[in-house]
Amino acid sequence: MSAATPSTPHSESHGHGYISDKARYLARLKRIEGQARGIHRMVDEDTYCIDILTQISAITSALNNVALGLLDDHLKHCVAGAAQDGGAEVEAKIREASEAIARLVRK
Amino acid sequence: MSAATPSTPHSESHGHGYISDKARYLARLKRIEGQARGIHRMVDEDTYCIDILTQISAITSALNNVALGLLDDHLKHCVAGAAQDGGAEVEAKIREASEAIARLVRK
Amino acid sequence: MSAATPSTPHSESHGHGYISDKARYLARLKRIEGQARGIHRMVDEDTYCIDILTQISAITSALNNVALGLLDDHLKHCVAGAAQDGGAEVEAKIREASEAIARLVRK
Amino acid sequence: MSAATPSTPHSESHGHGYISDKARYLARLKRIEGQARGIHRMVDEDTYCIDILTQISAITSALNNVALGLLDDHLKHCVAGAAQDGGAEVEAKIREASEAIARLVRK
Repeated sequence: MSAATPSTPHSESHGHGYISDKARYLARLKRIEGQARGIHRMVDEDTYCIDILTQISAITSALNNVALGLLDDHLKHCVAGAAQDGGAEVEAKIREASEAIARLVRK
Repeated sequence: MSAATPSTPHSESHGHGYISDKARYLARLKRIEGQARGIHRMVDEDTYCIDILTQISAITSALNNVALGLLDDHLKHCVAGAAQDGGAEVEAKIREASEAIARLVRK
Repeated sequence: MSAATPSTPHSESHGHGYISDKARYLARLKRIEGQARGIHRMVDEDTYCIDILTQISAITSALNNVALGLLDDHLKHCVAGAAQDGGAEVEAKIREASEAIARLVRK
Repeated sequence: MSAATPSTPHSESHGHGYISDKARYLARLKRIEGQARGIHRMVDEDTYCIDILTQISAITSALNNVALGLLDDHLKHCVAGAAQDGGAEVEAKIREASEAIARLVRK
């Protein structure tokens, strides 16, 4: 970010820095946090139930989109990377990806 | 609506105050807001993608549970209330409840 | 169906005959049954996985739509009817409707 | 992989034959087809709506499980295989896998 930051703390080489366009995810998550706060306020102010439900569907959709984006990044970087490296790692990577997908689908 | 209707039949004096145990919903939504903030931090710190996905599934589940609780309250109070009163109101109430359910199911 | 059928075979008074436009549901379910048979054949013939998944999403969507339609009918007839009759019945009806909704949402 | 492997590593000679334990999928899909037929009969016989919804949730769950199993096979065979082979193919494979996952999650 600045010349005073010589190291790259979350680079590819250490950490999991595979998330493409991190700033965009962070902005979306900031918005989701605001939506959650908004739902709290709606309940507190006795907003009409159907309007609260609409907001909950919106935030759930937004979270699903973030999850699907992260999963796509994960398949591209971690899973494909492990497959290229070969070895047993790829099986473990695919197993945990499949479990994460199942949690998203079943909810 | 008219001078002949002095009372508000389906509310606790103001708002739609039909939510049972509001304090409990507010506590759950506070927790959800904290979870959303946590996911933002996880992305910012390059947490392992699968762990972020697990958190997103948890928050989505929690939001679904809040929605299902609110919907149950809504059916009990608004829809059943409108049905007891008779008239065209109940049809409109059921239509909007069905639309809200569809948004939750389809997501 | 014919002049020889003077009675209403699936009326409110016997059976649960509340389903509006039953012929349309039956046609949709016939189509869904055919889709299920089609997926069986695709797996049997080693069709490309992604194409099978597309078909599964289509059938799941179609089933969700049938479920949402039936639920809407149920709210209109059984739940609203029980509310008009008053008594404890309506609470039980709403509880079972809410449980059915939860199963659809959580899946 | 090596000269000692004369056969075709990612297929069963024709089709996409990557589905592990095909007989088990076929049996599950036969059962799902029977469930679909059962729902048709339930509607035809004016079965109580909530019981029909329970069956629809069961079949949707069963379909999701088939889809998640096929997707896992797909990641293991097609996606990991393409990654090992290298080249542009893997990107296309991951894109279509991600799109299929999105359809399952959003429904």
